Amino acid sequence: MIQKIGIIGGTGMMGRMFQSAWEAQGKEVRVTGSKDLDKEKALVMESELVILSVPIDKTAEVVRRISPWLTSGHLLSDFTSVKSPVVPVMAKTEAQVIACHPMFGQVQSLKGHNVILMPLDGGGKFLHQYKRLYEDLGLKVTVLADWTKHDESMSVIQGLMHFIHIVFSRTLAKRQVDLETVLQICSPVYQANFAFACRILMRDPHLYTRILMDNPQNLSVLSDFLAEAQGHLKLIDKGDEKTFENHFLETREFLGDLGEVFSAQSDYLVEKLKEYPPAPEK
Amino acid sequence: MIQKIGIIGGTGMMGRMFQSAWEAQGKEVRVTGSKDLDKEKALVMESELVILSVPIDKTAEVVRRISPWLTSGHLLSDFTSVKSPVVPVMAKTEAQVIACHPMFGQVQSLKGHNVILMPLDGGGKFLHQYKRLYEDLGLKVTVLADWTKHDESMSVIQGLMHFIHIVFSRTLAKRQVDLETVLQICSPVYQANFAFACRILMRDPHLYTRILMDNPQNLSVLSDFLAEAQGHLKLIDKGDEKTFENHFLETREFLGDLGEVFSAQSDYLVEKLKEYPPAPEK
Repeated sequence: MIQKIGIIGGTGMMGRMFQSAWEAQGKEVRVTGSKDLDKEKALVMESELVILSVPIDKTAEVVRRISPWLTSGHLLSDFTSVKSPVVPVMAKTEAQVIACHPMFGQVQSLKGHNVILMPLDGGGKFLHQYKRLYEDLGLKVTVLADWTKHDESMSVIQGLMHFIHIVFSRTLAKRQVDLETVLQICSPVYQANFAFACRILMRDPHLYTRILMDNPQNLSVLSDFLAEAQGHLKLIDKGDEKTFENHFLETREFLGDLGEVFSAQSDYLVEKLKEYPPAPEK
Repeated sequence: MIQKIGIIGGTGMMGRMFQSAWEAQGKEVRVTGSKDLDKEKALVMESELVILSVPIDKTAEVVRRISPWLTSGHLLSDFTSVKSPVVPVMAKTEAQVIACHPMFGQVQSLKGHNVILMPLDGGGKFLHQYKRLYEDLGLKVTVLADWTKHDESMSVIQGLMHFIHIVFSRTLAKRQVDLETVLQICSPVYQANFAFACRILMRDPHLYTRILMDNPQNLSVLSDFLAEAQGHLKLIDKGDEKTFENHFLETREFLGDLGEVFSAQSDYLVEKLKEYPPAPEK
């Protein structure tokens, strides 16, 4: 089993989170930050697994720097949200590569969150071991054989959703909406929506900007969203109830069985939100 | 205290929900549906409070029909989501008017949900009594003195948010996104967002279409949203990181203290969503 882990960029939020979680399990974890470039060689030489936890636009540079010390006995991985600028660069090293995307940022507990692993050439002897590293922390691991599918999915997961929340909040700001009144009288669904927008807007602007700019699939997804928005706004403007309702029903058909399944999940969220803030534990 | 309540359109989902809740409290509740027009006169004559629970575009017609039987001893109210096409029509009757907007649809329990009351001319002797009717069901009542503020707020609460979820889902459908894969690997925030979209898409298309078309404020809010979306897509296309990040920070500033407060609320939702489906009660 993997015992020695090195995290480059490990002094950031994600790196620290995993460092303490793995150390609690008896692993040897080394980390370096952007001021410890002189310690990177030792980190690579002394680790079986090297993880890059650096901004997307810095990853290629780091790979080039550590490349001379990477051998076929190393597992090389990363935490970046977009894979197409990163995986081909990692693939050029001697190391076995398994790209990784933890589907969460700062969280109260790792347990139950999603992690995606994307092995190159099947991940070799490391895939099973690397999967276990995350499973032992209580994470749910999905292995995606084709990493290009990752960026495609992420363009609708992160790209579209972040974009919507950022533009939604910006629209409230532009109109100088009276937030106090709105939040006093709104429905739980709106309240949750606002909470998720705040979750994004209170975090690292650079991270969200890069996620939107670095995934080449985003432009096409966002353009589609914009075209649909324009089309639907026109229908509202013309009062074309019939076409609007037809689109609505077509979309419902596309959702299929998932529509009911996730609608039930929204009932659960609405009830849980009414219990917020939770009663203090006794 | 108000004892006799008549709900016109009371055979719909909202009407039934309130009928059984008030009957459980010992109130006399009469309801009529669209096939009981002959019973409307008796309903009005025998009720102290008459509530219109009919589609927005039918409300004016109903008011005209029951108007001859309404007296100054009546309290007239409604459940519609948009007030500007409705309140001026109700105001022309002899009755005291207090418009009402329950901020929820089909829910597992009424307790803790929001209701907005908008009294005309202060609501007279009825305001206190009417408020109690809802409070006794465990609802949170907000009195909004200026009903025009209601439609203004609703254009960002319902108008903008419904629009976003409808167009978001439509974009997934248009691209024939592989939902199973996306939902398997997505983050809790995306999962919640998808659940809320399903909540809307699985419900009455006519209701959502009318809410978008009947509030005259929606066009302006949605146009602002679209303009912001276009502007931000251009920044992504050009790779203008600096302006994008500046907008992000300006928006955060607008959110002010609410940003942290609601971001914490999103942490709670993320943790709760991980507990879904909830363990069966023992």
